[in-house]
Amino acid sequence: MLLVRREIGDVLRELRLKKGHTLRQVAGRASVALGYLSEIERGQKEASSEILYSVAEALDVPISQIMRDVSDRLAAIENVLIPDTVPADFIASFNSEVNSMRG
Amino acid sequence: MLLVRREIGDVLRELRLKKGHTLRQVAGRASVALGYLSEIERGQKEASSEILYSVAEALDVPISQIMRDVSDRLAAIENVLIPDTVPADFIASFNSEVNSMRG
Repeated sequence: MLLVRREIGDVLRELRLKKGHTLRQVAGRASVALGYLSEIERGQKEASSEILYSVAEALDVPISQIMRDVSDRLAAIENVLIPDTVPADFIASFNSEVNSMRG
Repeated sequence: MLLVRREIGDVLRELRLKKGHTLRQVAGRASVALGYLSEIERGQKEASSEILYSVAEALDVPISQIMRDVSDRLAAIENVLIPDTVPADFIASFNSEVNSMRG
């Protein structure tokens, strides 16, 4: 069974390590018990929305980015391709360059 | 405080309505109590990872898509722009068209 809490745990740990923080530092900043944060990172406990909010703040990462990383990991596991939108300004510059070359 | 469960609830309700299902139908298929699913949709209860899995199956939607929708909603609220990757084949066709015109 595909469990969202496992991916959330992996994402939180990766972000924490990338920022060079210890469990103790993040737990302290987020006012979460160290053992609880450790269980969340290992995918053993569900993080409540309030705890996710505090941990995201402690890591200085938007919650949307955390959930996007979670979604990307789930998509890889589910073998689902979620089409990215080509940014509008990229399409605009593409069209204007092509048109200018067509003269 | 930005609460992930509110966005999850909104996304689950939207997907359910888009598919034309009632709360009762989805609760039955997912083996979740109707009142509980209703509270999840209203953002009042956290959905465990197991329940998210069952509800996603009952809705016939990949969990990754649900979390992507949640992330997109959070990004809009946080006013965060998560850059989409421009698909590689779009870049390749852009480059080949430009090169052929430069010919």
